[in-house]
Amino acid sequence: GIDGDRLWDSLMEMAKIGATEKGGNCRLALTDLDREGRDLFVRWCEEAGCSIRVDRMGNIFARRPGRDDSLAPVMTGSHLDTQPTGGRFDGVYGVLAGLEVVRTLNDLEIETERPVEVAVWTNEEGSRFAPSMIASGVFAGVFDLDYGLACADQDGRTIGEELERIGYAGAEPCGGREIHAFFETHIEQGPILEAEDVTIGVVTGAQGQKWYELEIEGQESHAGPTPMPVRRDALLGAARIVDLVNRIGLDHAPTGCATVGMLNVHPNSRNVIPGRVFMTIDFRHPDPDELAAMDREMRAGVAEIAERSRVGTTIEQIMDLAPLPFDPACVEAVRKGAEALGYSSRAIVSGAGHDACNISRVAPTAMIFIPCIDGISHNEIEDAKPEWIHAGGNVLLRAMLDRAGR
Amino acid sequence: GIDGDRLWDSLMEMAKIGATEKGGNCRLALTDLDREGRDLFVRWCEEAGCSIRVDRMGNIFARRPGRDDSLAPVMTGSHLDTQPTGGRFDGVYGVLAGLEVVRTLNDLEIETERPVEVAVWTNEEGSRFAPSMIASGVFAGVFDLDYGLACADQDGRTIGEELERIGYAGAEPCGGREIHAFFETHIEQGPILEAEDVTIGVVTGAQGQKWYELEIEGQESHAGPTPMPVRRDALLGAARIVDLVNRIGLDHAPTGCATVGMLNVHPNSRNVIPGRVFMTIDFRHPDPDELAAMDREMRAGVAEIAERSRVGTTIEQIMDLAPLPFDPACVEAVRKGAEALGYSSRAIVSGAGHDACNISRVAPTAMIFIPCIDGISHNEIEDAKPEWIHAGGNVLLRAMLDRAGR
Ligand SMILES: NC(=O)NCCC(=O)O
Ligand SMILES: NC(=O)NCCC(=O)O
Repeated sequence: GIDGDRLWDSLMEMAKIGATEKGGNCRLALTDLDREGRDLFVRWCEEAGCSIRVDRMGNIFARRPGRDDSLAPVMTGSHLDTQPTGGRFDGVYGVLAGLEVVRTLNDLEIETERPVEVAVWTNEEGSRFAPSMIASGVFAGVFDLDYGLACADQDGRTIGEELERIGYAGAEPCGGREIHAFFETHIEQGPILEAEDVTIGVVTGAQGQKWYELEIEGQESHAGPTPMPVRRDALLGAARIVDLVNRIGLDHAPTGCATVGMLNVHPNSRNVIPGRVFMTIDFRHPDPDELAAMDREMRAGVAEIAERSRVGTTIEQIMDLAPLPFDPACVEAVRKGAEALGYSSRAIVSGAGHDACNISRVAPTAMIFIPCIDGISHNEIEDAKPEWIHAGGNVLLRAMLDRAGR
Repeated sequence: GIDGDRLWDSLMEMAKIGATEKGGNCRLALTDLDREGRDLFVRWCEEAGCSIRVDRMGNIFARRPGRDDSLAPVMTGSHLDTQPTGGRFDGVYGVLAGLEVVRTLNDLEIETERPVEVAVWTNEEGSRFAPSMIASGVFAGVFDLDYGLACADQDGRTIGEELERIGYAGAEPCGGREIHAFFETHIEQGPILEAEDVTIGVVTGAQGQKWYELEIEGQESHAGPTPMPVRRDALLGAARIVDLVNRIGLDHAPTGCATVGMLNVHPNSRNVIPGRVFMTIDFRHPDPDELAAMDREMRAGVAEIAERSRVGTTIEQIMDLAPLPFDPACVEAVRKGAEALGYSSRAIVSGAGHDACNISRVAPTAMIFIPCIDGISHNEIEDAKPEWIHAGGNVLLRAMLDRAGR
């Protein structure tokens, strides 16, 4: 099996880059800290004898050759970017578990029939640049390369510019090559596995997602002498939409989720009635019909609120991921791996989006989940037990060997 | 009378400093642009033969000597700072109308018995540094000097540091000297005068204000796999408070006002349930009992929302201005001035806070309002007609001569 301590140590080493006071990580996509994390990963892979390639979206591929190096590789990987107040495991675990598989194959002097690759996907979190999972999306043909490179952060800096700046604008084409199988190891980011005391989640697929950007338009005016009845308060409209989104989520619970994560007020001054609000909506559901219903309910509710609150609204949908089943053979390789190693396991649907969701459009794909403490992620207190980290890495090794051949 | 064209031209010249694309002004307190505006004012005053003094809060006093220069001065003035998306008249008009009075006295070779001073008060808007009217407040003993100098913006820079940086940390003590009478000319910032086609508002006093800062504390977690029923969404709690504040305002309308002008979400990432929200509340009412009732209703409502939304809340009140009557003799001087000049006028209560409200605690004070287009201010489209600007300056000249003696 893998060396669980070595994997844990590498995780803790990576977590120093962009460490936050509360024990979490802030390593936003394509910042200087992201560059540092990438450089460390590349150095470790080269030390493990891998060759490195970087594609035009900055995705990194570390390759351990196969016996027949002309065969399509078996790939694993995830992302190194984090949320602004993220944890030490989300993404990073899937990358470094892949590196640990390579190191273990080296230690055990195992030659695989197919090459093995460890991928780092750019801007998975969708926090600095929206939408999320954009670079695996370009790889899989969900987005055009031009769209991906032109994607801008809140300060107007684009992914293309930032890749150049940190030296990760690679020359390789993004996508268009065959992958024999793709696996991604990840913390669950939800409460199910821990609550049921199960070590391995055999991920059978992911729920659907719809992301929106809304602009609420009112009229700026003085908070003192402007009578209540004549106001057109953009924040009042936005607040009612936040409440609406929550009600839609509750109406579609327990499986559905609805969130307003970002909201910016303009001009954001204490004695000015807000003139404009930018806000986002994130809907998720495993059932496409329910997801479509959430969309309809939101649009009808926003129209009603706009009228009642005397504000203008525009709604732009910026992401639409259908609910998605993973490849049965890859899922079975994960289930069999957990079983053979004696770990408790159960089938589970991913609540989060992952790069694996995009890759599954162009390659047979599955995922391996481990529990996380209290189901909490996207939080500096995100945590996982070393034995879970170890177990997930072992299942990944098994599943990859199953597909790569010895 | 005054030279209305000269006053208008000076307003337009000042409006070039920090001009915005939409025809407004962004000249936040103690920025480089504020310095530029101050420098221009000081140069104009020196050209008009005034001496300049600056106090420790950066308040500027331009003085035209009186026949008996040992007598307490008659003072006028307002502020040069603006909202982030402010207009060309709010504050600036009251300053430059004072300068125009001095220029007119020079042109007409009028000697006044008492000295005449034109004041620029630091950080009236309360936008970059809260609370508003802080430097006139220190002058009037509402706040300690230490409190004023230590007041910080959202980036942690203090008024004291920024005064040093822009060269306006004066040596004069702030306050503690006698003012014979204080007048402030200002746009109404509300719809009443224009609606009634009245040129001059004889301001009899100002309504009370209470300002609050709230922190809403939830728990950050992933927007995808975190089930709705277990969430503790700080933005949901905040949104319900925005709606509550609006309901309180409507319940106390038409005279009462209630506004959430500022709201910051943390970490403000699309797929993270917000863990923390900072927000402000601004309550206004001319009746102190009603204002106290608004406070009680807000505290009870926030407690109920906190419980229902499973979030923590803290409420800090940072400003408490009682409703305030101006000095009857100064008010009468304004009324008489308007009458003598043949302008239509009416008594009016100020909906906004003004430096005059603070100064009225230590000196006989009144204000002169002119209409503004559609009652709109704290907006780049804020506007006023040249004839109103002219009329208000003429009334100011009359009222000041009435108090300063010839
Ligand atoms: N795994 C993860 O946190 N992905 C971020 C994209 C999402 O919002 O699901
Ligand atoms: N006049 C004015 O806009 N003052 C700002 C302070 C306030 O009333 O909020």
